[in-house]
Amino acid sequence: MTIAKRKLSSVSFTQIRFTDTFWSPRIETNRIETLPYIYKKLQDTGRIGAFDLNFTRPVPSPIVLIFGDSDPAKWLEAACYSLAIHPDPNLKTLVDHTADKIIGAQQPDGYINTHFTTIQPEMRWRNLRDWHEMYCAGHLIEAAVAHYQATGNRKLLNALSRYADHIDATFGREPGKKRGYCGHPEIELALIRLYHATGNERYLTLASYFINERGQQSPEQPHYYDLEARARGEDPQKYWAKTYEYCQAQVPVREQEKVVGHAVRAMYLYCAVADLAAEFEDITLLETCQRVWDNLMHRRMYITGGIGPSKHNEGFTEDYDLPDETAYAETCATIGLILWNHRLLQFEGDRRFADVMERGLYNGFLSGVSMKGRHFFYDNPLSSVGDKHRVEWFECPCCPPNLARMIASIGNYFYSTGANDLWVHLFANSNADIKLGGKQINIRQTTRYPWDGDVLFELGVEQPETFTLHIRIPGWCEDFQIEVNGKAMDMQPDINGYLSLTNEWKNRDQIFYSMPLPIKAIWANPAVRNLEGCVAIQRGPLIYCLEGIDHNNLPLNRIAVNPFQIERDFIAEYRPNLLNGVTVIRGKGTAIDDAGWGETLYRSRSPKVNEIELTALPYCLWDNREPGEMRVWLRASAR
Amino acid sequence: MTIAKRKLSSVSFTQIRFTDTFWSPRIETNRIETLPYIYKKLQDTGRIGAFDLNFTRPVPSPIVLIFGDSDPAKWLEAACYSLAIHPDPNLKTLVDHTADKIIGAQQPDGYINTHFTTIQPEMRWRNLRDWHEMYCAGHLIEAAVAHYQATGNRKLLNALSRYADHIDATFGREPGKKRGYCGHPEIELALIRLYHATGNERYLTLASYFINERGQQSPEQPHYYDLEARARGEDPQKYWAKTYEYCQAQVPVREQEKVVGHAVRAMYLYCAVADLAAEFEDITLLETCQRVWDNLMHRRMYITGGIGPSKHNEGFTEDYDLPDETAYAETCATIGLILWNHRLLQFEGDRRFADVMERGLYNGFLSGVSMKGRHFFYDNPLSSVGDKHRVEWFECPCCPPNLARMIASIGNYFYSTGANDLWVHLFANSNADIKLGGKQINIRQTTRYPWDGDVLFELGVEQPETFTLHIRIPGWCEDFQIEVNGKAMDMQPDINGYLSLTNEWKNRDQIFYSMPLPIKAIWANPAVRNLEGCVAIQRGPLIYCLEGIDHNNLPLNRIAVNPFQIERDFIAEYRPNLLNGVTVIRGKGTAIDDAGWGETLYRSRSPKVNEIELTALPYCLWDNREPGEMRVWLRASAR
Repeated sequence: MTIAKRKLSSVSFTQIRFTDTFWSPRIETNRIETLPYIYKKLQDTGRIGAFDLNFTRPVPSPIVLIFGDSDPAKWLEAACYSLAIHPDPNLKTLVDHTADKIIGAQQPDGYINTHFTTIQPEMRWRNLRDWHEMYCAGHLIEAAVAHYQATGNRKLLNALSRYADHIDATFGREPGKKRGYCGHPEIELALIRLYHATGNERYLTLASYFINERGQQSPEQPHYYDLEARARGEDPQKYWAKTYEYCQAQVPVREQEKVVGHAVRAMYLYCAVADLAAEFEDITLLETCQRVWDNLMHRRMYITGGIGPSKHNEGFTEDYDLPDETAYAETCATIGLILWNHRLLQFEGDRRFADVMERGLYNGFLSGVSMKGRHFFYDNPLSSVGDKHRVEWFECPCCPPNLARMIASIGNYFYSTGANDLWVHLFANSNADIKLGGKQINIRQTTRYPWDGDVLFELGVEQPETFTLHIRIPGWCEDFQIEVNGKAMDMQPDINGYLSLTNEWKNRDQIFYSMPLPIKAIWANPAVRNLEGCVAIQRGPLIYCLEGIDHNNLPLNRIAVNPFQIERDFIAEYRPNLLNGVTVIRGKGTAIDDAGWGETLYRSRSPKVNEIELTALPYCLWDNREPGEMRVWLRASAR
Repeated sequence: MTIAKRKLSSVSFTQIRFTDTFWSPRIETNRIETLPYIYKKLQDTGRIGAFDLNFTRPVPSPIVLIFGDSDPAKWLEAACYSLAIHPDPNLKTLVDHTADKIIGAQQPDGYINTHFTTIQPEMRWRNLRDWHEMYCAGHLIEAAVAHYQATGNRKLLNALSRYADHIDATFGREPGKKRGYCGHPEIELALIRLYHATGNERYLTLASYFINERGQQSPEQPHYYDLEARARGEDPQKYWAKTYEYCQAQVPVREQEKVVGHAVRAMYLYCAVADLAAEFEDITLLETCQRVWDNLMHRRMYITGGIGPSKHNEGFTEDYDLPDETAYAETCATIGLILWNHRLLQFEGDRRFADVMERGLYNGFLSGVSMKGRHFFYDNPLSSVGDKHRVEWFECPCCPPNLARMIASIGNYFYSTGANDLWVHLFANSNADIKLGGKQINIRQTTRYPWDGDVLFELGVEQPETFTLHIRIPGWCEDFQIEVNGKAMDMQPDINGYLSLTNEWKNRDQIFYSMPLPIKAIWANPAVRNLEGCVAIQRGPLIYCLEGIDHNNLPLNRIAVNPFQIERDFIAEYRPNLLNGVTVIRGKGTAIDDAGWGETLYRSRSPKVNEIELTALPYCLWDNREPGEMRVWLRASAR
């Protein structure tokens, strides 16, 4: 990308109705199970009652309370998305109630934060580095925007605008303002959303200030977090995270080269950087995104779209450090990765960003929630010896409401439009009504994706319309066929990896698009030390894994697969009765037999190896049956 | 073993003269380089001057000082061993000087401890669990015994006897005494040595008390470490190591089932347990040894004889937890393992104990010191990405003097005698004068062991003597030939794994014993998760490894070997100019090629694999050339 202009506009999830068996049940479970369940948990842990500012809530722990407001905020955003596509009177009542609670907690000066209003009022804005005040503000702003868009009611939007005004009056380069910015980016992207919802450019300017100020320091102007720490009587050298890389404030944003520190912070930051690049057509910001994206894609991303290998900093470590069993790969980080790539995709419609989005959505994101919707993964390792299972809740419950808002708005990621262009990024049985310029277009996808790669598009137009339909050829797709109204087309993808069909489209025109879904053995770059001699199994967008339950609870590291057999002999088999219908992959492997070893620890006779039947399941569906082991990367035999 | 009686008596190292190229240079380097070097380091870090009790020494850190006396003690013991086999006036001067310093630090009541005399006199005997007072006493006692045996001078022995008397007067079950015992076992085995050196049975009784009291608790008699912590005003529940397993005091010794906690502590403890089993013919103590030995051998020992995988507790974790790169495998722990197995070997002459002794000596022990004698490993991992190298010294320098005392007394492990029996446990070009009953026997080994498995024994007797010569068939030896005076014998090993040759032996009788040394691929029990699909290379007693320097500094995890080729095609090649002469193992393997990957992180095309020449070096010799990677366990291809 050489100019920082967004050619594409994302089509809102409210325009799409899913009728598939992959996302629809998730959206419905999210509405019926997950959202009421999370609300109850937020109530039980005092996070809703906190807005009463009356101290009667149970206090789970001080550190959680500091950013406790963000959880109801994300829940509210998720619930509003759900309401926007499915009326639900009970949910509506909870939404109204929560919005009123938040409004009720607003201080005369506009400030809203339950912790720093009731527990530590003297510490307001005194530790931006660690204490998440603007992070919470950002999520409240996002909730307010979603609330306004879902209900048409401006009351929460107005309240949060007042809070944003207060922040704008407090922070900035102008004399008398603090030159701070939040240690956990989030408010930046939220302010840009608020700008679009209200039209008030001050919010855009404030977001821009936060991005431009981040990581600045000079002999005249010490690092804000240093100043702030000293003002609290602390030694900045004793920062617990050791380096401001943790919060991407080690150098100014435009000088950042690698993706470092806390993964969620990094993703939210670069979302705003991408947004601002587009708003101001600022190529220097887009180049920053490109540099760190390259580093992330080429050296720091799990095959599942998980990012941030280390629990220690909930984030990044070194290039090619991608341990599987201890992978942190926080659900929220993959959500951030999807949000960021969705933004980058809108610049030019470059397939690579849609590929990442799809990788995250179908793998490391969706693994975060159980099919029944009430159990969650915070971290998403790529192998487990059986001690890892989704749980009902976390002390820091950021992931469940984050998951809920993404599932409720999953349609956001499917289409984009241009002046005379319609982009299809993702595939699912669905029906969408899309405005293209002044034209109203209906596009229906008939497909069993991701179990099958055939997609029939049927267009609905009131009168023939000329526009270009761009259909993504996924990065994993090496071959395809396309027919327009039954006529095979000999086409090549455009420079961005899409098939571009310009036509005068008539009502009920049909485009049949077929992506073969061969089973592939995937290798990691030899620089990834712990994956040397390992292969993963992929089919279409789905990364597969083995689970113990399908293999007599054999320790899965005893299993080896022949990579050539994976591609030649393994078969995909749809099982309608397994987990609401899933395509498994079957084939033969070998397993080291421990028979005859007894109490021998070392011996010169090789262990017996047995042929066994393997059944691989999509990674995103693991741990939905009996607990047990799981592995994505399998030992390759015959290397 | 069903009765706890030692049938064998170990032959002292003073009776053996090494003329080989494996141990002789080590013994000489130890005398010329290591011992003076360690002495200087002890001086420089204030550990010698500490005995002046005048506070002028530099204080490295409080925790080191608490057990700082043990380091000069072990050095003194080592130096006395060296003097016993090789006169060295300079060393003798240092020895005398150090002995006098120690004697000079003795308090009127017999107490000797520089820290608790000068720094914290009020804390004497108030934290047996953590503060190593008796551990230091034990090493001082061992030094005194060695000093007496090397010099014939009783002055240090008398001083330490007075200290032991003081301890005996302070601890025990008698009214008025403390019912304590040291958190770091050592004094128990030392007191038994003191008993043998002095004939004073009270030291034996005291050692027995310590072993019997350890881990005792009842409703009437709380755990001593609980009582002691409360007396210091501490909550015993807040013990930093969490459980008394750390110091093997979680249950009484006779109830201990597994080898747990700090590895060196465990080994020193079980040395004394084995000694006391023999002294009192106490089968319950021997059974304890057998139980924990089984656990250690079958589930918790590295192939190198390293023990204790975890840095966290410097010790044991779970069964089959044997990570290679993070293996702690402290040099001192392998020394303890050798000491313990040497003791167990003397009961029945059961080869299994000699096998462990040999495994430790030729691998995980000897790796602890560089060939030049001035660089040391504290921990001995089984693989390294190149960031692990021997260093000159440690803040806690327990390993260097411990290594020095074992190398100086390496001859201890070669022979044992019985009434009419001579056992040969280990092999080296050497000459020994051994008393057998009243008879004086000379036995000369002519061999290139461990590079070659042929050993010619020549006996020297003044007149024909009838006795049984027991020659060990190592556990790794699956075949052997034996000739007596040129006549091939068709023999089977006895129940203990030795060849037992009863004969009227004449002067210059020759026994030619040939152990083939095939190159073997060794597998770990499939229960060891991280070694699934890996093989190690062994030849004779030596475990081999790959080093980066021999493989163009290729990341060694890219290399795979075909286990069947190891045994069929690999060759042993003696290289006289490499590291003073060493037999390497050569053969072909494959290496994953990173050519063509560029910035691709994942792809479906398998990486290219090249055939490469492999050169494996004995593990004990690694890191004696240019720094780089190292691996013992190699990926097996064709599994």
